[in-house]
This record gives sequence, structure tokens and C-alpha cells, in this order.
Amino acid sequence: MSTHRDQDRPLAGLRVVECATFVAGPSGGMALAQLGADVIRVDPIGGGPDHRRWPVAPAGGSLYWNGLNKGKRSVTVDLSAPEGRELVTALITAPGPQAGILLENTGRAWLSHETLAKRRPDLIQLRIQGHADGRPAVDYTVNAATGVPGVTGPETTAAPVNHVLPAWDLLTGMTATTGLLAALHRRQRTGRGGLIELALADVALASVANLGWLAEAQTTGRDRAKQGNHLYGSFGVDFPTRDRRRVMVVALTASQWRSLCRVTGTEKVFAAMEEALRADFSQDADRYRWRKMIEPILRPWFEDRTAEEAGRELGAARVLWGPYRTFTEVLERERENPLIADVEQPGAGAVASAGSPLRWSGTGPVPPVAAPRLGAHTHEVLSDVLGLTQADLSRLSRAGVIRGASPDR
Amino acid sequence: MSTHRDQDRPLAGLRVVECATFVAGPSGGMALAQLGADVIRVDPIGGGPDHRRWPVAPAGGSLYWNGLNKGKRSVTVDLSAPEGRELVTALITAPGPQAGILLENTGRAWLSHETLAKRRPDLIQLRIQGHADGRPAVDYTVNAATGVPGVTGPETTAAPVNHVLPAWDLLTGMTATTGLLAALHRRQRTGRGGLIELALADVALASVANLGWLAEAQTTGRDRAKQGNHLYGSFGVDFPTRDRRRVMVVALTASQWRSLCRVTGTEKVFAAMEEALRADFSQDADRYRWRKMIEPILRPWFEDRTAEEAGRELGAARVLWGPYRTFTEVLERERENPLIADVEQPGAGAVASAGSPLRWSGTGPVPPVAAPRLGAHTHEVLSDVLGLTQADLSRLSRAGVIRGASPDR
Repeated sequence: MSTHRDQDRPLAGLRVVECATFVAGPSGGMALAQLGADVIRVDPIGGGPDHRRWPVAPAGGSLYWNGLNKGKRSVTVDLSAPEGRELVTALITAPGPQAGILLENTGRAWLSHETLAKRRPDLIQLRIQGHADGRPAVDYTVNAATGVPGVTGPETTAAPVNHVLPAWDLLTGMTATTGLLAALHRRQRTGRGGLIELALADVALASVANLGWLAEAQTTGRDRAKQGNHLYGSFGVDFPTRDRRRVMVVALTASQWRSLCRVTGTEKVFAAMEEALRADFSQDADRYRWRKMIEPILRPWFEDRTAEEAGRELGAARVLWGPYRTFTEVLERERENPLIADVEQPGAGAVASAGSPLRWSGTGPVPPVAAPRLGAHTHEVLSDVLGLTQADLSRLSRAGVIRGASPDR
Repeated sequence: MSTHRDQDRPLAGLRVVECATFVAGPSGGMALAQLGADVIRVDPIGGGPDHRRWPVAPAGGSLYWNGLNKGKRSVTVDLSAPEGRELVTALITAPGPQAGILLENTGRAWLSHETLAKRRPDLIQLRIQGHADGRPAVDYTVNAATGVPGVTGPETTAAPVNHVLPAWDLLTGMTATTGLLAALHRRQRTGRGGLIELALADVALASVANLGWLAEAQTTGRDRAKQGNHLYGSFGVDFPTRDRRRVMVVALTASQWRSLCRVTGTEKVFAAMEEALRADFSQDADRYRWRKMIEPILRPWFEDRTAEEAGRELGAARVLWGPYRTFTEVLERERENPLIADVEQPGAGAVASAGSPLRWSGTGPVPPVAAPRLGAHTHEVLSDVLGLTQADLSRLSRAGVIRGASPDR
């Protein structure tokens, strides 16, 4: 089931303990597992607050939890008992140059770096936070505060439009893995570990700044308005097709714009319009400024074609385009994609599961694997890593300090 | 200006060549520069297709390009000339255990791994693609095909709602850095480099699968509908306040829900409603199912308070909340945040710029730095890395093969 024993994988041999819930931490831990690390997710007995998070399968298992925890080993321990905390501390600070790496979002004192580093001074610990000052936050509250919902959605909707994709969570997860691997590189060079903190709110703030959106408000002294489905600062918008579908079309560069005009047979009309408007549509700024004049000129070409026909012609002309799909359609279309396969998941049956998007020459694509059953590796890990005997494990189980695999849901 | 000489940084000494444009590759390269790597961005003379991308400053410089290329060294070379290509190839394949790392999105044959690995067999090359089969794609076309726009936006809007944040680009950038650092870890262990490919479309597809959204469509046999600003599968929505502002409030766990009820004084009414509806609002599923009954009960509490008052009380009660802000307000509120500072940027003046959200114990926060002027490090890099003499550089300049710093815009 899990792939952590494959010695050819980039992170083979590395051991990471994960004490994290919901999306950010677990998605980062999963990426490390997909790269070959042995990722041990620690949960309280019965599971963390994300263990039943929606969407759930008709059979009761969380498709969300399964999706975000594939390929890890699962250990469940009574985290309120001193003996349980000691087991987790021992797992985190176990010796070895490839161990001593912790990814967490708990904010708990007994997992503070100060406490843990007493046991293993070169521990690498990455703590994910809501806000940098310790205030809690989640993707959706952070997103509101970035300003992005205010520029999202139809121009006619005054209210902010929330994103559905937890983009900040996902981005924080991969920022965390980048930070952990950079810290590992440093430890290998210098022997030093350390605490790395990463706040969801800071990831979001840095991103809107990096895109130039804060500097734009600062230099123009005003906030931009909603643009509906139009791309900001160049040309891109969606078009309905003859078969009542919709495609997204983007001309980000002058050459993409020329291709779009050529394939849609609109070169002459745009040349005439450029002259009349004193515009130059080869420039981003002018394509953006006149987007509402450009869009209606292109629309009939799409209305004359099915989405498939339009896509074929646009593709041949190397115009950037994408069909709009529902999740059902995505699933159907991606049946041939080796990134997605039906995998038997706990409490869910065989369901569509994703591998890693990173494709490695030599080792091939990393296929999707199952999530662990909650607690499935408790005994195995405590015996492997801490050398606990069968007698120790039995005593801890009887005392309620640890628990093995739970039933399917 | 650039910080690549600071020996205490996690990636100090590492050299990465970046031949990439727009968001994904450059944002990844920038993250490596912020971790201390010497990141050399190579562009054609005059700049890549992203060099003037919006938003632009009134003075003409691209706030977007500046934001995504901070702390790198910039080299401009005639990429259509054989001699220019040879210089770039030599930079990429220069010897040293800390060099030989390439991040690119060009798809060009002269930058194929086969060609480059002949010169340096242990080269690590990460190639970002649109689609895995080589078809071009950008964030906005990929996003349409994920299914996300179909579940985003007001319930009353039938049409898909595009995101504004290029979430897939940003996520691909940090997936790329994770892949590069994992490959470096493997090369240090085994001596082997290799090609790693990463398609924007695969990052998006894997993400919607990881969140359980494809498996949900598969197991239920239907597509979920739009939920407006409601959080899917639990309780979270925005509320207007007395001062005509708006706050986002989320109760993801039973304990957060109890806190929200307590602070808003709604415990009794919800208890009565739970009895009448035979519901249990401590369960995600019931909070979600009855969200449109719950929302109006909470609303008056918000209408009685300013956003600041509501935030203060919610914060004290540890309820998850966030204010909605415009970019101008974000800028104003984050003035005290060390992550953001005004930095003199090429062609833009002193503008709000972000450092790295990763906070390192021992080395402190990484402050924002400037982007290079296009081509500013051409001579320096070719002399440092390839040992070119002043006479070589003069000859190459005269022949138009290289160019140094361009004027401000």
C-alpha cells in the first residue's frame, strides 16, 4: 500500500513526523510521501478534527481525508496522556541523520521547539500557523483579508465572491515542503536544525504582493474593479459554443493574439478597428482596454462551432484554450491519464485518487496509492522506530494510550 | 540588493539557472533566491514575454515582473544566436556540486535534457509544462478544465466564475521547488541528476482529486451545485456589519461552533431549532445542511456591530473570522508587518514588496529585496561563472550576443 520502502525514490530513507490537520500540513506531508519519504501522521485516538471532513463517501469514509493522506503511515495515540505525549516526542526526536523532521500545525506547548530541541538539538520543525502572531485562521478567513474576493466574480455582483478552491492551504503545504527540504539541505551542510514558522496569512499576503497587486493599488491610489471572467491586463475570456458549452480563450502574448485572429478570420476587422480606435492590439494594454469591443467580434466564430470543433482548430493554431468542465466530466476525460486511478480507500471503496504530478525520468510517474486506515501503523511504527516490544504494545493498548487500526469508518 | 551572498541562509552556495517566464517558474525561482540560492534568470535581449506584464507602475515598470523576480541575478543573451545558446548551455552545465540545477518552461530543443545531460550528466532539470503531452496551457485555461469555476460564485449565476488569483501557477511554482530540492537530496546521496517534468494541468487535476472532489462526483454520480460564499460541507459564510463592511466567519469544528454560538448568544435558539429539525449542529453535515436556517439567526448580531467590534469579540472567543478588505486596505493594515516593505524597484520607484513567508529561527525573517534591472548581471555572471574576460565580454556585446543592464523601463 504505502511506497515508503522504494529505495530509488528521491526522498527514500527520510522520515518525517506529521502532527497536522486539514489541508495545508497534510497536503505537504503527502507530497513528501509521494517523493519516497516515510511520513508518519500522528492523530489522537478516534482521529483529528479533519477525519470526517466533507466530501464523504456514501460508505462513510472521508474522501477529503483519504485524498490528503495517501501513502502515509498512521499512528493513533492518546495525546492528552503524558505517556502518549512521550511516545510522540520520542518518535519526533528519534536519532538518525534522515530522521528528526517534524511538520505540525498544533501550536501546542508540549510540541514547542524549545521542548523538543532539548531532546534532539538538530531537529527540523516546521510549524504552520494561521496568523504569524498565533491567532487562528483558515483559508477562507485569510482569503477575505487578501482583497481577492473583492475583485472576483461578475462585474454586476457588488459583494465579494469567495474562492472555493482552498488555494492558500495548498500553496502553504508546498511552501512548507520547500522550507523543510531547504532546512534539511542546511542541516546536512552545517549540522544545524531549527524552527521554521509559516503563517497561512503570510503566504497569502506575500502572494498578492508578489503579483504586483498591492503595489498597483499603492501607485495608482485606487482599487481595481471586478472584471468578470476577463483576464486582467491582457486578453482572455470565456465564449459560449454552438453546443451550449463554454471555452476559455487566452491571448497573453502578441504571437498568441495573432494566432487567435488568424484562426478566427478576424485579422481584417481588427486591423480596421485598430486604425479607427488608434489602438495596437499587439499590446497587452490595448487588448485589455478594448476587451469589450474585441469579445463580440470573436463570439460568432465560437457560436458557429461545437466546443470540440473550436478546440480542435484552436489547438492546431496553438491558441491557448481550455474547455469548461464539471467534476463528472473531468473524471470521464481523465480516465486515460496515469495521474488518476481508482484506488481502494478506507471507508470509500475504489475511488478516483491522484498520484504526484512530478514525473521523474528513470523512476517513472508515481502512481496513486491508498490512504492508511486510521491507526493502521501504530504498532508497526512504535516497534520499528522506538523498538517497543510486543509486551510494551499490549500494555499500552490495554492502558488506552495507543490504538491500532480502526474499522473502515 | 540581492542576498545570494549570505552564507547563513539555508540554500547559501546553491546556484540555479532559470529560463522561465510568467508566474509558475519565476515564483519558484524567487522562493529559492529567498532561501539564499544564487538564482540566475536568463532572458532574451529586451526581456521575455512577461517583462511588461500588467500591473505596471505609472513610471512604466512591470510591478508583476518585479514582484516575481526579486533577489535574482538577471542575464540577457541573444537566444536565437548559436553563440548565445552556447553561453546559456555553459551556465547551466557549469561544474560544481552546488551548481547544475535548471528550472525552465521553454520546451525548446536546445534546452532538452538529452542535449544538456551530454555536457553535465548529473544535471537536475525541472521542466514546467502546460499539459504533460506538450500542449500549451496557462492557469486560466487549465482552471476552466478542472471544474472549479462551475462551483464558484453566487448560486444565481449559472455561468462559471473564473478565479482571479493564478492559484495553479503559484502552486506549480512551489511544487517545482519541492521537486528540485528533493532531486538535489537524491543527487547528493547517489550522484544522479535527471529530468523532472511538471505540468500545470496535472498540478490542478491532482489537487481537485486530492480534495476528494472527483471521488465525490464519482461516488454520488452527480456534480455539486454552487454554494455562493458558503463553505462546502461545514459552516462558514460572510456577514454584513453595521458599518457596511463584511466579515467571513467559519465554524469548522464542533468547538468552533460552540464558541460562535456562545459569543453571539444564540445557544438557546439553536438548541430549540435542533430539537425541532431533529438536527445536531455539532456535526458538520447538519451545519451544512441547515446553513440557510443558521445564517439568518446569526445575522442580527453582526448587523448590530461594526466590523471592528465584531472582530474583537469573535477574536476573544477564538472564533475563526476575517474581515473583507480591498488591496488598498490590505496595504494600509499591513504597514507594520515586516513581511512587506517599500523597496526601490526597477521602473517603479519605492513600492510595496514582499519577503519570504518562511520565518527561520536564528536567521530571522527574510526581508523584501529588489528585482534586478533586466540584464544587470550579464557581465558579472559570465565572468564569475564562466571566467569570461573583459575582452570576451566586450566582443560579445559588440556582436549583440549579450547585453548588460537596460534603462529603467
